[in-house]
Amino acid sequence: MIVAYTIERVRLAVAEARSRGLSIGLVPTMGALHAGHVSLIRSARRECGFVVVSIFVNPTQFGAGEDLERYPRPLTKDLQICEEHHVDLAFAPEAGIMYPPGYRTWVEVHELQDLLCGASRPGHFRGVATVVLKLFNIVQPDLAYFGQKDAQQARIIRQMVQDLNLQLRLQVCPIVREPDGLALSSRNQYLDSAQRDHARALHVALEEVRKLAEKGERDARVLRQLLASRIAATPGAVLDYAAVVDMETLKPVARVKGEVLVAMAVEFGTTRLIDNIRLSIATEES
Amino acid sequence: MIVAYTIERVRLAVAEARSRGLSIGLVPTMGALHAGHVSLIRSARRECGFVVVSIFVNPTQFGAGEDLERYPRPLTKDLQICEEHHVDLAFAPEAGIMYPPGYRTWVEVHELQDLLCGASRPGHFRGVATVVLKLFNIVQPDLAYFGQKDAQQARIIRQMVQDLNLQLRLQVCPIVREPDGLALSSRNQYLDSAQRDHARALHVALEEVRKLAEKGERDARVLRQLLASRIAATPGAVLDYAAVVDMETLKPVARVKGEVLVAMAVEFGTTRLIDNIRLSIATEES
Repeated sequence: MIVAYTIERVRLAVAEARSRGLSIGLVPTMGALHAGHVSLIRSARRECGFVVVSIFVNPTQFGAGEDLERYPRPLTKDLQICEEHHVDLAFAPEAGIMYPPGYRTWVEVHELQDLLCGASRPGHFRGVATVVLKLFNIVQPDLAYFGQKDAQQARIIRQMVQDLNLQLRLQVCPIVREPDGLALSSRNQYLDSAQRDHARALHVALEEVRKLAEKGERDARVLRQLLASRIAATPGAVLDYAAVVDMETLKPVARVKGEVLVAMAVEFGTTRLIDNIRLSIATEES
Repeated sequence: MIVAYTIERVRLAVAEARSRGLSIGLVPTMGALHAGHVSLIRSARRECGFVVVSIFVNPTQFGAGEDLERYPRPLTKDLQICEEHHVDLAFAPEAGIMYPPGYRTWVEVHELQDLLCGASRPGHFRGVATVVLKLFNIVQPDLAYFGQKDAQQARIIRQMVQDLNLQLRLQVCPIVREPDGLALSSRNQYLDSAQRDHARALHVALEEVRKLAEKGERDARVLRQLLASRIAATPGAVLDYAAVVDMETLKPVARVKGEVLVAMAVEFGTTRLIDNIRLSIATEES
């Protein structure tokens, strides 16, 4: 496995892979790799001739007072995981490589960036869109892999790819969960053992919503209120948002119909967790 | 010459050219081609195996009350000029191809976009950066050609290329002028004959500044005031700005030193003209 710390090294390796006729897959990560990331790497390995994993804790997607400083950076372990899963190239740049002095270009995906997590984290998705576009331009992948856990991120990146006429395909892979249902996240390690125990409430509540919708509940407010009441009843949990939104616009729907995203963000102390499910309701009965 | 109206047609032709080992040159234009554009096309023809000219009056770089509606669109003549100059592909998309319904992704080059023309035309350079990035992604050129007349645009595109890690080289070509010195512009045709006559004042004033600087004048305020007084003395001319700025930051300098841009914008009725010169002063004498 090649470990690249510079853009030039990445370009050289990718050009060499291309010259061998290999397709290029990119898995952009912030490191602290877990089984969720590994599932992305596995998909990339299955579908691409040359697999690139980027490991970069992107400072521009963290707001003031967020966890940029304490975000885990176990680089040696991350590289081991990449190697074990037959990654061809790991790209682990310093911040100054990605954002040299005088950096000043930003990508904004209007409306979508301001909803859901964007409402609580102003500037977050601007940082995400910008760094992902940079990584796309550096690696020039044929396929890029994202997790469904970050559903809004995946939606925004898809919009950016379409609007900016990027020539690559996105693959959005299912959420990987702990045995008790907690969605894997690098931030789970911030939780103390009581918080960790209560954190399963997100998944439990979302599955209750799924069952209620399967039983025919179409009133989005009822589903949202179910989420809110379950989180309210969870010790140490503070609801940031619970939303039932259209998959395309990410705007709240009144009735559950078509492709709908049920998403929530919950804080346990200073740790912010997100989770979601998708509902696919072919037609509205009445 | 291929005339493409869709992105798919461009991609097909460019891929075919690439497969023949040709380098790709892009000349982005808004049409109404004049000798300034032709000089860009000639440079591209000299340096690239496959020359693409885009002809697109980009609505997103026009502000409310600007000249989007009346901007000239002599497409047949433009295509003839392209053909005459051995362009391989002319790309003339409708606005709906470039900005389909639901479009919402924008590129911003902070600070640089707000200075000089950006101060009078809010949103202009956001539109420029966005459409140019889209054209880059559609055509994927090795080289792209811009005119020095739009000095701020060239500076902003250069910043965007660098910041977003685009793999192409920019060529910025000298200003082409009428015999009396007026910089060529598609907007010159808006001028009535008296305005056209007085419009040479921009060039005359800039050349006076050049001579004064060559004689040793280093006080930027003196140079700026010379420009302002010459425009003030020109019938029908209203100064928008006259600026002596650092070539890199586009911010005003107090003393002329290093690479300096002397730029101005002047309105004749509803027609806005711009012009500039570069000064290169190796060391400051004193």
